[in-house]
Amino acid sequence: MTGPLVAPDLGAVFGGRAVLVTGGLGFIGSNLARRLLALGARVTLVDSMIPEYGGNLFNVHDIAERVRINIADVRDRSSMDHLIQGQDFLFNLAGQVSHIDSMRDPFTDLDINCRSQLSILESCRLNNRAVKIVFAASRQEYGRPEYLPVDERHPVAPVDVNGINKVAGEWYHLVYNNVHGIAATSLRLTNTYGPGQLLRHNRQGFIGWFIRTVTEGGEIQLYGDGSQLRDLNHVDDVVEAFVLAAAALERGAPNAAGPSPAGRFYNLAAEPPVSLRELAELLIELAGRGRVRHVPWPEEKKAIDIGNYYGSHARITGELGWRPRVPLREGLQRTLRYYEQHLRHYL
Amino acid sequence: MTGPLVAPDLGAVFGGRAVLVTGGLGFIGSNLARRLLALGARVTLVDSMIPEYGGNLFNVHDIAERVRINIADVRDRSSMDHLIQGQDFLFNLAGQVSHIDSMRDPFTDLDINCRSQLSILESCRLNNRAVKIVFAASRQEYGRPEYLPVDERHPVAPVDVNGINKVAGEWYHLVYNNVHGIAATSLRLTNTYGPGQLLRHNRQGFIGWFIRTVTEGGEIQLYGDGSQLRDLNHVDDVVEAFVLAAAALERGAPNAAGPSPAGRFYNLAAEPPVSLRELAELLIELAGRGRVRHVPWPEEKKAIDIGNYYGSHARITGELGWRPRVPLREGLQRTLRYYEQHLRHYL
Repeated sequence: MTGPLVAPDLGAVFGGRAVLVTGGLGFIGSNLARRLLALGARVTLVDSMIPEYGGNLFNVHDIAERVRINIADVRDRSSMDHLIQGQDFLFNLAGQVSHIDSMRDPFTDLDINCRSQLSILESCRLNNRAVKIVFAASRQEYGRPEYLPVDERHPVAPVDVNGINKVAGEWYHLVYNNVHGIAATSLRLTNTYGPGQLLRHNRQGFIGWFIRTVTEGGEIQLYGDGSQLRDLNHVDDVVEAFVLAAAALERGAPNAAGPSPAGRFYNLAAEPPVSLRELAELLIELAGRGRVRHVPWPEEKKAIDIGNYYGSHARITGELGWRPRVPLREGLQRTLRYYEQHLRHYL
Repeated sequence: MTGPLVAPDLGAVFGGRAVLVTGGLGFIGSNLARRLLALGARVTLVDSMIPEYGGNLFNVHDIAERVRINIADVRDRSSMDHLIQGQDFLFNLAGQVSHIDSMRDPFTDLDINCRSQLSILESCRLNNRAVKIVFAASRQEYGRPEYLPVDERHPVAPVDVNGINKVAGEWYHLVYNNVHGIAATSLRLTNTYGPGQLLRHNRQGFIGWFIRTVTEGGEIQLYGDGSQLRDLNHVDDVVEAFVLAAAALERGAPNAAGPSPAGRFYNLAAEPPVSLRELAELLIELAGRGRVRHVPWPEEKKAIDIGNYYGSHARITGELGWRPRVPLREGLQRTLRYYEQHLRHYL
């Protein structure tokens, strides 16, 4: 459709620019901050440090002197009104990400994943219509796949409250793009792993919990036979997708490097898919410790499980030139090395 | 797929049963109440009487002695906790329905169309898991049609905040059905007209405004050439869909009368589609007064317009035996007659 993609000069896009990252002390936000600093951006990180959510000051221990850290909740409109002013880019990553928690306490999930997103967008509309926004959405929006790999034409049919609210949060961005002209795009992340991830509990997905378990030499419990397929992205790849999406918003549309991502959404994905059992076994091999035990499905997890899932990243590869670069084995190795050194900061 | 549908004995389903209707003083709720009374149900109507929303005591002037009217807001959890107890059926119709208002005040739309729905469902989960729920959703969920007629396989892609929040409200019902076992189904209504509709302002869709305008002998303003196609259901047909859906939930699944609607959603629709210009001309002919003027599109309406829309009701016809019965000309005639007599109660 378009000519060969030219890698954008990211330093030229971000050098000296003001960037706000919500959820900035979390797993992906802090890794993104590091990358944006390297590209010369002036970075403000907003995080509310809600216990058990993922914000962790240790995640920025090496860059704390070079970023502005602002503790605030995205639900707090007046703080956001202030912080949003003068920003060139907004990486909107703050969220409640636990599916199980969303079923136990749906109202908190609603407030953070719906109301706050509306509030942030209203704040942009009233205070900074020129800001460019990249939103962190989730493969969770698709629910149980009807076909594999899941592409962006797949119906959206979430199986839990968190998935529904993430859909709403994403679509607010697209509507504000289309109706109010606030440039926004959305990335639907699949399972992400790497340094900086929450390991304290097992309610934010399996991968962090697996990593913690083998790091501690413990027993990974697999529900059923562990044959469910998943795809996993290393956080470095995810960070690059955010950076490329923002740079493409900045360039505007249409241009030689593909159509504008404004008002669009993109799957992140990785290949090949891997079963949870294979993943557990690979982690145990790489760590040189840990073991697997198969256990029956807990009722509340079975009710919202989605079976096999892996996605297609053809759209973002074609339009923005992104593809995953970090092989799973290498990514897991680097991750295990990180936690072997720093585990105490994540417990 | 299934054998010929046997019309359910609705009197046997609803006779003596306790039924709660949220939005019960509104257009569809009050017509539904009348039908449920005729079927022998014990009917409680909940409405918050928010000015400009559609609740109108005149809508129940003929049945006020035979229903229980409870003024309360669905956002008020403790009231709903009390009212939900002991109900056999919940017809969940309360909502903010103006697309334009949702763009001007997205938070109120969020509170009513998302938070209240979650709150009602949590109330059911904690107080009355046996209740059977029919939710009033909207064709608005589909956004701009990719193909016509729109069936239930059409992607959901709302173009405004109201549409997004209606999606979330509907999907909460489906998730609570699937995860918590609270029997719920959803009807995606298309444009509905008939006695009892709000006519006070033009922010709840065109049809009520057209009817008011010709009743007053005024000028219908058509945006552009008025060629956009729509389908319209008379409220009596919509009421029958609610009753049939609830009866099917009661029967459970699977059975001779088709699959259970639990956890499913259905389009209401009508054929043939009609252009806004044809509709205006038909109303003017039937009323014997009024006129049409073509005006340019207002910016804020253009931004969220969906072009042509008409739906397919094949799924609900096949599974629940519903089809529209009231021809457009006859339905409009009856509606005009109603407002010629009662217009002052709707201004």
